[in-house]
Amino acid sequence: MLSKQIQEDVANSSAIRAMFTEGMELAKRVGSENVYDFSLGNPVTPVPEAFTQAMLDIIEEEKDTTKLHGYMDNAGYPEVRSAIAKHLNKRFGVSLNQRNIIMTVGAAGAINVILKTIIDPGDEMAVFAPYFTEYRNYIGNWRGNLVTIDPDYETFQPDFEDLKRKISPKTKALIINNPVNPTGVVYSEETIKKIAAILEEKQREYGHEIYIISDEPYRELIYDGLSTVFLTKYYANTFVTYSFSKSLSLPGERIGYMVIPDEMADFDAMIAALTIANRICGFINAPSLMQKAVARCLDEKTDVEFYNRNRKALYEMLTELGFECVYPQGTFYLFVKSPTRDEKAFVEAGKRHHIMMVNGTTFHCPGYVRLAYCVQPEVIEHAKDAFAALAKEYNLKGKKS
Amino acid sequence: MLSKQIQEDVANSSAIRAMFTEGMELAKRVGSENVYDFSLGNPVTPVPEAFTQAMLDIIEEEKDTTKLHGYMDNAGYPEVRSAIAKHLNKRFGVSLNQRNIIMTVGAAGAINVILKTIIDPGDEMAVFAPYFTEYRNYIGNWRGNLVTIDPDYETFQPDFEDLKRKISPKTKALIINNPVNPTGVVYSEETIKKIAAILEEKQREYGHEIYIISDEPYRELIYDGLSTVFLTKYYANTFVTYSFSKSLSLPGERIGYMVIPDEMADFDAMIAALTIANRICGFINAPSLMQKAVARCLDEKTDVEFYNRNRKALYEMLTELGFECVYPQGTFYLFVKSPTRDEKAFVEAGKRHHIMMVNGTTFHCPGYVRLAYCVQPEVIEHAKDAFAALAKEYNLKGKKS
Repeated sequence: MLSKQIQEDVANSSAIRAMFTEGMELAKRVGSENVYDFSLGNPVTPVPEAFTQAMLDIIEEEKDTTKLHGYMDNAGYPEVRSAIAKHLNKRFGVSLNQRNIIMTVGAAGAINVILKTIIDPGDEMAVFAPYFTEYRNYIGNWRGNLVTIDPDYETFQPDFEDLKRKISPKTKALIINNPVNPTGVVYSEETIKKIAAILEEKQREYGHEIYIISDEPYRELIYDGLSTVFLTKYYANTFVTYSFSKSLSLPGERIGYMVIPDEMADFDAMIAALTIANRICGFINAPSLMQKAVARCLDEKTDVEFYNRNRKALYEMLTELGFECVYPQGTFYLFVKSPTRDEKAFVEAGKRHHIMMVNGTTFHCPGYVRLAYCVQPEVIEHAKDAFAALAKEYNLKGKKS
Repeated sequence: MLSKQIQEDVANSSAIRAMFTEGMELAKRVGSENVYDFSLGNPVTPVPEAFTQAMLDIIEEEKDTTKLHGYMDNAGYPEVRSAIAKHLNKRFGVSLNQRNIIMTVGAAGAINVILKTIIDPGDEMAVFAPYFTEYRNYIGNWRGNLVTIDPDYETFQPDFEDLKRKISPKTKALIINNPVNPTGVVYSEETIKKIAAILEEKQREYGHEIYIISDEPYRELIYDGLSTVFLTKYYANTFVTYSFSKSLSLPGERIGYMVIPDEMADFDAMIAALTIANRICGFINAPSLMQKAVARCLDEKTDVEFYNRNRKALYEMLTELGFECVYPQGTFYLFVKSPTRDEKAFVEAGKRHHIMMVNGTTFHCPGYVRLAYCVQPEVIEHAKDAFAALAKEYNLKGKKS
């Protein structure tokens, strides 16, 4: 007697976890040192020491345990929200205040709260392919319909013409993931301006708001001196969602926030609705001790250089062997073109060499595979022979061969 | 551009918080010592010291921070689930195992995950009145329809005939809250057996599962040597949901669990679906440090005797003044009969005496008001004159007058 929707969700949502499980089983048979598992986007760099110290200090300082672990406003502690607003102001030159921040149970919580607040059943939500597969499930929770916007397959930047074509009178919002899981692409200021201009025009044409949800859990995992642009500066009806899962290596703690700028249409009603939605969705509020701890660590980061080294090593290894891949500027993912059109066959071939990858169909982009390089550097080094054998199987012409 | 449903939710869900806000504003005007605020169900007793020590020990012991704060199975840490299973086995004489426990973001998270898993739009969910108002919102999230089952108004035990009448072919589940917010009633073994027998018969008649969701966040707040019965022993298709918010005074931390017994229909498919639903709903998993900390404090309780003293003091005061109320056996609530049919007028009259109460209509039970006695004992003592004046206004005949 499972609901029809969860039956579909179960059938569709198992690719990444299934690959991880297969990798574990393979490791039991052949030894974990002989399995090259690039399937899961699970942070491996340590939590900054300052975070652990912040938790200990807070437990030591706050003797009133009902304040430390008790209910607060469903939007979060005022002083935590204020600290985040100040941090963003300094970093991005915006003018946010406590009222513009709602603390959430991770970015996944933030997105669901926003979708609950804006979606009526049958509304359309536009998403750039390839995309994080859970967006489809989150939109399904609220009975919205996901509309896929094609990328420019040369660069994996958005196809602006396809965006114009597919924004319809039923479109409620566009979800942007920046930097992008699974491609590692970072959207430039120019790209953001183009997207904003298209949506402004569509808002005028259809006479109602079309929101942007800018989902930025990988904001700090960005390389080559780049940084993301802050979308509220370019488009008023923007929600920014954020998680500390990657920046502080805290994915188990479920702590994040959303930003709602003053310029958003119906600001007061929107804040009231989001705050109540945080409660009604069952989150109630972001975990209390974690709220206080992240507020003291806003300038802290996990070891981003670790991922950068992996990025370079894996990218160079694969391209030298003849694989094709857009050089990623952020996240800890590579999105590699499958040497054969049917990338699922390529994933299976990889498995025979003990390489675990996730098929691009999972991200609504067949013909590619995702490799997560949040692994120990030895995994990349030791995988070289296996990748070479795989390249040979597909007759790839390596640069040095 | 708010969704239609959130607009309704905002309009309907403000009574308790509105009362709390009014109480705060009144406190600014007349001084907080002159406001008798019985509106919010917010624990006031300290977190057990063992819990604080458990957090500190875990932070000290687990040097691998990616394990302490990292992803785990969406169902929670195996050792935490195992500890909870053993605890319940010892306490209730059941035979649970790790596989029967899923860790959740509080009981609110657990309920939403279950509802996502079982509700198709238009399905009916039966709930005994009076009920925790958020049940209506949680059911609305998944487009189910709440069907209210009347109580026996003498005892606030269920009206079994009404239950029989209202379980229809569209009923997916019955939600039981035990002990009951807002009445403080505890369901006896006899009551549970009667409910189970009715649902067994209806399952046979309609040929499909009808689940019970037994929501037990107040399980430890129980008095007079009573204890709740464990529903999976009486009815196979039972989910038990639990939160540590009240038992350990941790409402801000959002930590709880659900129990799914082996006897449940389609057990394996159900566990798989619930685990995925935990992820898709946006919870992902229960907060990781809190999972580990509660697992070490399963035999700990906050100061339940504190609430017991308040229960007796407030009950005696009110009944001596002539108010009518079923003597509560659990929770920290009294559900008092309004001396006038329109209990909203009575709530307004209370406010004029600086007494903040919540109208029963909020709990789908007009003609009553809820008083939360999770307050400092002085609040009850100091409220005596105000209640006496209120009783006089309604010409109540006090026992000692």
